[in-house]
Amino acid sequence: MSKGNKQALRKSINCRLTDATVVEMQNIEQAFVIKSSNTPSVTEEKVDGHSSEEIINLDHGDPTMYESYWKNVGSKYTVTIPAYQSLSYFSNAKNLCWFLEPKLEEEIKKLHKVVGNAIVQDHYIVVGTGSSQLIQAALYALCDSLNEPNPISVVSAAPYYSSYPEVTDFLRSRLFKWGGDARSFDEDGPYIEMVTSPNNPDGVLREPVVKRAKGMLIHDFAYYWPQYTAITSPADHDIMLFTVSKCTGHAGSRIGWALVRDQNVAKKMVKFVELNTIGVSKEAQLRAAKILEVITASCQRVKPHDLENFFEHTHNLMAERWKKLQDSVKNNKLFYVQKYPLQQCNFTGDFTETYPAFAWLKSKEGIDCEKLLREHKILTRSGRRFGSDQEYVRISMLSRVDEFDLFLQRLSTIRRISSGNSEL
Amino acid sequence: MSKGNKQALRKSINCRLTDATVVEMQNIEQAFVIKSSNTPSVTEEKVDGHSSEEIINLDHGDPTMYESYWKNVGSKYTVTIPAYQSLSYFSNAKNLCWFLEPKLEEEIKKLHKVVGNAIVQDHYIVVGTGSSQLIQAALYALCDSLNEPNPISVVSAAPYYSSYPEVTDFLRSRLFKWGGDARSFDEDGPYIEMVTSPNNPDGVLREPVVKRAKGMLIHDFAYYWPQYTAITSPADHDIMLFTVSKCTGHAGSRIGWALVRDQNVAKKMVKFVELNTIGVSKEAQLRAAKILEVITASCQRVKPHDLENFFEHTHNLMAERWKKLQDSVKNNKLFYVQKYPLQQCNFTGDFTETYPAFAWLKSKEGIDCEKLLREHKILTRSGRRFGSDQEYVRISMLSRVDEFDLFLQRLSTIRRISSGNSEL
Repeated sequence: MSKGNKQALRKSINCRLTDATVVEMQNIEQAFVIKSSNTPSVTEEKVDGHSSEEIINLDHGDPTMYESYWKNVGSKYTVTIPAYQSLSYFSNAKNLCWFLEPKLEEEIKKLHKVVGNAIVQDHYIVVGTGSSQLIQAALYALCDSLNEPNPISVVSAAPYYSSYPEVTDFLRSRLFKWGGDARSFDEDGPYIEMVTSPNNPDGVLREPVVKRAKGMLIHDFAYYWPQYTAITSPADHDIMLFTVSKCTGHAGSRIGWALVRDQNVAKKMVKFVELNTIGVSKEAQLRAAKILEVITASCQRVKPHDLENFFEHTHNLMAERWKKLQDSVKNNKLFYVQKYPLQQCNFTGDFTETYPAFAWLKSKEGIDCEKLLREHKILTRSGRRFGSDQEYVRISMLSRVDEFDLFLQRLSTIRRISSGNSEL
Repeated sequence: MSKGNKQALRKSINCRLTDATVVEMQNIEQAFVIKSSNTPSVTEEKVDGHSSEEIINLDHGDPTMYESYWKNVGSKYTVTIPAYQSLSYFSNAKNLCWFLEPKLEEEIKKLHKVVGNAIVQDHYIVVGTGSSQLIQAALYALCDSLNEPNPISVVSAAPYYSSYPEVTDFLRSRLFKWGGDARSFDEDGPYIEMVTSPNNPDGVLREPVVKRAKGMLIHDFAYYWPQYTAITSPADHDIMLFTVSKCTGHAGSRIGWALVRDQNVAKKMVKFVELNTIGVSKEAQLRAAKILEVITASCQRVKPHDLENFFEHTHNLMAERWKKLQDSVKNNKLFYVQKYPLQQCNFTGDFTETYPAFAWLKSKEGIDCEKLLREHKILTRSGRRFGSDQEYVRISMLSRVDEFDLFLQRLSTIRRISSGNSEL
């Protein structure tokens, strides 16, 4: 490891465990909260790769991998916002989604056209504070007008995104409730199925599984972008959710958008965002518009610019990381990762595997995989959180390069000391 | 009216009614949606002041009045955000509020210290996507851990902010429900009282009214800033909500903050924002930090800058508008506005009246004031929406100057043609 890399690593790893430390991983922020008599401190020593003193946090999908691309882009694509701009609540009072910045709407349309991953025509665009807000907006929109006596069940096939149950139930709404694994759902009446494709956590391309007459679908397409998967056809569903977080890496902006076919559903979603947050930050929308503009420009064959094709660049990064991970576990008796089928991508024209944003790592039967990795100071999210088993963990593939390499290095050592694990 | 003003007015008024038009004012966005066979268009003619062709929309409190100050500030305080900045979900993983930008936290503390309107010490700062989100976060935080069998009542003394009932009830939570006017609340058990001071809609300085042992309080201080009211003492309550929207005029940023005494309540509020939107836009926070920095700098007596004191400037604007409004209704037999007592302001050292962000206009008994004004193409919000009577309307005092002047001009004509109103 070079000296420069070590310095970067010192910055990227900012927690140190003491004996008295208990790490809680119930949710995204707790994964960072180190309960200790000492305040967590920056590790200034022992950063030589596999010291047991450092935590590698791959529990959440923080997309810091993308920073290097955006640093190379340079200052030309900086956003500047003068003090007098965007004071009003309104972006375009004549639009159904009155808080959607026209520039963002334009860039969303252009990007979908260039990538070919969704049909925008005949859909309304509703912007949200991340796609999390839009999931809740869609649940509200679909349930509020039905006037059902009981809450409508929200289901998704296991393993499902670990936030769906909590986001559905935290306010104990009478409109909807979490209904669990779609495969075992057998109630009559209306229901909502979340279809995540490629799926979080396991990267599988998905279709609905319940398929009953009274079903309503929300397609979560956070990962349906060319760096992760072949774009096999433009998606064309009633409610499709996207987010800049996993597309461009700008998770801090909290910008998502929904493509919604039905006008009344779109209006109700807008109503939700109005009641919940009175619209969506204008600064974040203007920045997201600029970022999407850069990405679209980077895909143009005739280049009026010096931008490297964003999706090619990040696709190559993902392929490289997945190859490294597969190599790392190939001769390992403890861990397995899934292989994905080759498919032709309409965006690149080439055949490609899926390179998911998360690895869905399986350990040998009987092992509590999350616990085992935690003993080695690798924080991941247990399969149990996704309606699956303790043998599985979800591991972010989107960390900074030094963290990722350190993770692989440490993973490879677990094989050698695995007999010391109490569960083996 | 000058030619320049007329041109500005043409831009600021962008809707035209036709005979077939129906205006709905049930909520903030619908107040802008003109249902018509024609698309609403920019009025290019008949802008000579009191033409019945133009709509003046003062239904919502869009703070565009502040634009002129920020235009004068110039380009020195522009925010620039490079493409690689703020990709992560996290702002400061070691902070209880892990998505709060350190710079914003610093500027919030400085501003409260300079203005003297709230005690920050011994409080946690929780940032939100506007204070609307923080109201919901506070309701969740206060109710979720109580495990009450029935939803906890949320009350506020009438006239109360028209959004409280809808924001409390729209998801039909089992945790809390709207309980109506605090003055007629007589249930036993825990309850939450919203205390808005100065109050929206009527500008009155308020204290809690229920005052029972099991009461929990949320103080909404959106308007407790020197342009609107005397700062009589630094507020020091369990949960205090603020927003840049009404302080600086940057409603489009969607940035609010809560000062929260109890650590567990603050943690739960953070949890709400995590589940609801996974944090708050970094761009909006960075911009808000810069804007607060400018305001604080503008208040410094020894000036290292050319900034006009923001609160003095805007206080003078408010005083001027209120004088004009009072003059306009003084000899009018139809309308009345409240007078506010003089109080000493610790911030300026001077005595001042309250100059609320909204006028709480009362009409002669028996008149549906909102309907009457609507007939004259002035959109306001009926007193009924605030738990009050049809004789009252709430009118925004924060519109652009041309809109405000046109409103006064048109208001003065209503007296002369009031006999034509069907309700008189």
